[in-house]
Amino acid sequence: MLAQRLSAEFMGTLLLVATVVGSGIMGDALSDDTAVSLLGNTLPTGAILFVIITLFAPISGAHFNPVVTGVFWLRGELSARDALLYIPVQIGGGIAGSFIAHIMFDLPLIRLSETVRSGTGQYFSESVASFGLLLTILMGLRSAPQQIPILVGLYITAAYWFTSSTSFANPAVTIARSLSDTFAGIRPSDVPMFILCQILGALGAAFFVRYVIRDQAPS
Amino acid sequence: MLAQRLSAEFMGTLLLVATVVGSGIMGDALSDDTAVSLLGNTLPTGAILFVIITLFAPISGAHFNPVVTGVFWLRGELSARDALLYIPVQIGGGIAGSFIAHIMFDLPLIRLSETVRSGTGQYFSESVASFGLLLTILMGLRSAPQQIPILVGLYITAAYWFTSSTSFANPAVTIARSLSDTFAGIRPSDVPMFILCQILGALGAAFFVRYVIRDQAPS
Amino acid sequence: MLAQRLSAEFMGTLLLVATVVGSGIMGDALSDDTAVSLLGNTLPTGAILFVIITLFAPISGAHFNPVVTGVFWLRGELSARDALLYIPVQIGGGIAGSFIAHIMFDLPLIRLSETVRSGTGQYFSESVASFGLLLTILMGLRSAPQQIPILVGLYITAAYWFTSSTSFANPAVTIARSLSDTFAGIRPSDVPMFILCQILGALGAAFFVRYVIRDQAPS
Amino acid sequence: MLAQRLSAEFMGTLLLVATVVGSGIMGDALSDDTAVSLLGNTLPTGAILFVIITLFAPISGAHFNPVVTGVFWLRGELSARDALLYIPVQIGGGIAGSFIAHIMFDLPLIRLSETVRSGTGQYFSESVASFGLLLTILMGLRSAPQQIPILVGLYITAAYWFTSSTSFANPAVTIARSLSDTFAGIRPSDVPMFILCQILGALGAAFFVRYVIRDQAPS
Repeated sequence: MLAQRLSAEFMGTLLLVATVVGSGIMGDALSDDTAVSLLGNTLPTGAILFVIITLFAPISGAHFNPVVTGVFWLRGELSARDALLYIPVQIGGGIAGSFIAHIMFDLPLIRLSETVRSGTGQYFSESVASFGLLLTILMGLRSAPQQIPILVGLYITAAYWFTSSTSFANPAVTIARSLSDTFAGIRPSDVPMFILCQILGALGAAFFVRYVIRDQAPS
Repeated sequence: MLAQRLSAEFMGTLLLVATVVGSGIMGDALSDDTAVSLLGNTLPTGAILFVIITLFAPISGAHFNPVVTGVFWLRGELSARDALLYIPVQIGGGIAGSFIAHIMFDLPLIRLSETVRSGTGQYFSESVASFGLLLTILMGLRSAPQQIPILVGLYITAAYWFTSSTSFANPAVTIARSLSDTFAGIRPSDVPMFILCQILGALGAAFFVRYVIRDQAPS
Repeated sequence: MLAQRLSAEFMGTLLLVATVVGSGIMGDALSDDTAVSLLGNTLPTGAILFVIITLFAPISGAHFNPVVTGVFWLRGELSARDALLYIPVQIGGGIAGSFIAHIMFDLPLIRLSETVRSGTGQYFSESVASFGLLLTILMGLRSAPQQIPILVGLYITAAYWFTSSTSFANPAVTIARSLSDTFAGIRPSDVPMFILCQILGALGAAFFVRYVIRDQAPS
Repeated sequence: MLAQRLSAEFMGTLLLVATVVGSGIMGDALSDDTAVSLLGNTLPTGAILFVIITLFAPISGAHFNPVVTGVFWLRGELSARDALLYIPVQIGGGIAGSFIAHIMFDLPLIRLSETVRSGTGQYFSESVASFGLLLTILMGLRSAPQQIPILVGLYITAAYWFTSSTSFANPAVTIARSLSDTFAGIRPSDVPMFILCQILGALGAAFFVRYVIRDQAPS
């Protein structure tokens, strides 16, 4: 069973990053209007999130994201051992997704991104993005558990546009995107602060749901 | 319970306005084509409405809008006390949403909008927009109560484009948008007429549903 | 009951045409790229179709379209009297929708369209568009009756783009659009051939479903 | 029954190709921005996939795609006789769809495409596209069988953008598109390698689902 779960996390994160990076390359290549490129990056990302969460939720829970895995561990819904296995597999799947996008578009397997993403606004934005993502997941599990795939797909569709960082909100995806010098890239030296802000935002959402909404984890 | 309900109204309205204002800034910055900017404003707004209504409906009813709260009070589905608490919390959440969008995009916390939105067409448009929104909610509760989130998300997606005012249709959001001198802004002096027209449109829909369709509030 | 049903047909067709005409004006005004304008016309149309069909289906069946009403009458699912009442009410609602769009955008109440839509390709296109619409409705009632609103919304989303006429597929809407000299308009002298082709396409779909798929009307 | 099933496969593939080719012509004619044209090609394709799969799944299974038919035969869920009948009917329906699109846009019935689609990246891309499509279908049947229409519609929406080949992922559609010298075309001499890569990708997905996820075909 564990092998299946890890395979699902690997394949899902791979498809997610292949979509984010690949559609970024496509949108950027086809248009001079950056907003049009971002539309061409947003629709595929929202769409593939719905698909991979629906396909793999019954197998692995469909996290594809270390801060999601971390919050479920904190809430006692995932063992420490499973969390420690999920996270490297998600990172590996994400990197594989970057490679696959590069092969499809005839690019070098890896080229470190030079896209600067730093500053107070961007950092705050990543915290907001992750707060919103975890709020969506945790409140969604409480209010409409069957609808997590569409909730997450639509939340990220919105967050690509309402945050100044275009919502990475996922450490595995952030690392994978640092290996791609394309539309969706991020300079490796900006990765640590993004991940730190993602963790803080996710913890904020877990706090809000537990102590303000007073939600209990299902027992 | 009341604290949870008010927290839900605050957080939902905050996310709604952060999305409206933030995606307006993003779309405007990335494109010279105003219709592309409006697409980049529309998709996130429709998406986040689905998300926040789904997440918070079981807690507070997910109004996020004083005219919705007012109509539910008129129909006897919400006490006067609750309505009087909901409305200022919605306005506060909306203003907080504007602030958060500004911080993410490195803008001053407040700058009063200079976007003129006045004239007969715009005023009539706001009445039509609010009539349609309340018609969607009240008929939706009668015909397909489980589908309110998608009905409202898609109605506003349409109304951003078919009304000349781009459908504010919400006094709390209108006030919050007057504090943002960005794509989604509205000059403070135009706010009172917008709110008046929103109230008239909402009352029109309540009248239509009660006396033409002859719907009774659920008892 | 009949008054409610006719009110529902009137209000639904009004909202449909207000959306088609209004979003056409908005998209056209905001962009120099006609494909972007058409995107800004397509999304609202698909969205409002989902909304109005969901809201009014339990009341009137949510036809909003004389060829739909005609086919249901042919199949014995609607009385001749009701069909003869539905059709003028749909046309009246459509014209009212055109007026409302014009008022919102500060345009004259009526100005006959000068947009030429004629020729073999356009006529054939209207037949294909109506064939597809009726196929969607009749097969949808057989295969997934709960999903008619999303089926029709998505079919028209596709048909705006895959047909050369941008899919009017509705005589009431065609008449209403001839009164609007805007993006969505059609020259009055082209209306009769459009309506004839719409009827032929609809009959073709009814024939296909009855004699090829061998579907029986629900009894 | 067999005649109904083959009629459904024919009509569905016809509508799919008419949409792919027709919306490609429309998007290309209306915009100078290729990404906007691709948006105008993507939305209709995703939308019509949802429609035709929902309409025809109860009748024929809604394959519309020889590699889907082939994989179901391999898994023992379709007889060899049925598979051998489905495939030519799908190809015929696809070609008819191309013709219909051409008639609507006043183009010659057939003109062989001159669009070059070759090279390692494109071939690998078609394998990835078909792997993802079959993964979506086979895992979807396991995890959420009621949601196959939306899963396939959204998967292809994503794949139009994240693969460098814009995801043909279907031999019948590939052949039909080689007969159209328009936006969606493909040079006939590139068709065989595309089909070979589609078969390899589909087999890869069948292998992954059977031996990694250890899914059994429903019995």
